[in-house]
Amino acid sequence: MGGVVKLLGTWTSPYAMRPRIALNLKSVHYEFLQDPYGSNRSLLHEYNPVYKKIPVLIHNQRPICESMVIVQYIEDVWPTGPSLFPVDPYDRAIARFWMAYIDDKLFPSLTGVGRGEPGAIEQAVTVFQHLEENFEKCSKGKSFFNGEAIGLLDIALGCFLPWTRATESILGMKLFDPAKMPCLAGWAERFCADDAVKKVMPSTEKMVEYGKMLHAKYNPAPN
Amino acid sequence: MGGVVKLLGTWTSPYAMRPRIALNLKSVHYEFLQDPYGSNRSLLHEYNPVYKKIPVLIHNQRPICESMVIVQYIEDVWPTGPSLFPVDPYDRAIARFWMAYIDDKLFPSLTGVGRGEPGAIEQAVTVFQHLEENFEKCSKGKSFFNGEAIGLLDIALGCFLPWTRATESILGMKLFDPAKMPCLAGWAERFCADDAVKKVMPSTEKMVEYGKMLHAKYNPAPN
Repeated sequence: MGGVVKLLGTWTSPYAMRPRIALNLKSVHYEFLQDPYGSNRSLLHEYNPVYKKIPVLIHNQRPICESMVIVQYIEDVWPTGPSLFPVDPYDRAIARFWMAYIDDKLFPSLTGVGRGEPGAIEQAVTVFQHLEENFEKCSKGKSFFNGEAIGLLDIALGCFLPWTRATESILGMKLFDPAKMPCLAGWAERFCADDAVKKVMPSTEKMVEYGKMLHAKYNPAPN
Repeated sequence: MGGVVKLLGTWTSPYAMRPRIALNLKSVHYEFLQDPYGSNRSLLHEYNPVYKKIPVLIHNQRPICESMVIVQYIEDVWPTGPSLFPVDPYDRAIARFWMAYIDDKLFPSLTGVGRGEPGAIEQAVTVFQHLEENFEKCSKGKSFFNGEAIGLLDIALGCFLPWTRATESILGMKLFDPAKMPCLAGWAERFCADDAVKKVMPSTEKMVEYGKMLHAKYNPAPN
């Protein structure tokens, strides 16, 4: 199944990174439409009237919204290429459980860390610790949560690596310490080395610069 | 695929109702383990150490947690019987989008209505209105969001009908008015008339009684 594929997003958005990685893994050519709150604002409102949020995948002019809904759609529509889901139903359920856990717990805690909320660092470390403890169970000794190749759970977590690293760099501390979380550290290295990921993953320096710009915008210096 | 199936939950929980309906639709026999915070507390902690929440499906002694993960697992493991998902990938994506929307918006707003939070009634009505407007698009003129038979999106929404009706009865108002939301009203009637649903759906009277008991427990009369 081919057709015209467009993605509405920004280069900084972890959620937009998810379909971008999935499309790269499936070797699907797509047009990346940026500036969703400026020049492409009307597209965003037309295609995601409920949330008015990115990412939005536009496949043959039909919109699909919500990042994990989009990546599951990509898996359904382009079944050829690497499978993004384990074959066994129980393994699929475990992957779905952790995908939901990441969205439920990791993003709020990372946002909290950025805002300096009390307890947020501990919460983020707990999330990473849970994932460290469950890496072997999911990967069964292979390279990724999904097995030999990157899958949906890897994408769900991996998209937060740029923000995590930028946060660590700005705060001068580790949210996941390779000495304490060796499985996750090894996984992160392999994930970032994959061609499908390399193409979309911004450098830590670029994310730090963006983070500082955001901070200055929302916390202007007093006159 | 058979095996021993147990479900940890309570009769009042909308989230436990989801796998119960799905198992009934697939004609899977299961043991319903209640009292998860009392006599079955150790089972809950063993099988859902991350959240310690119901429902938990225990299939051949392996746990699956989170209601929508469980119902997708049920669909994957017992593919015979009625299909709980649309066949077309785009229709599946639309169903997944609304399933996520219900969990994201409906439960918090219904809880807010119960607590008398300002704006919660309007929020719940908006959710139902969005679903009313999208019923035709999902059902394509058929009986359910899923088409001819009940599917995952029907289950995701339908499990909130007992709480919705009890809330309406207690407050003496309508959260979805049949005159303004005829599609949803017709759908609710058909959903509740299905044998798989009838077996698990408590009466409005029973839910009202339970709601009043909860209210008295958390708001004791002053001495």
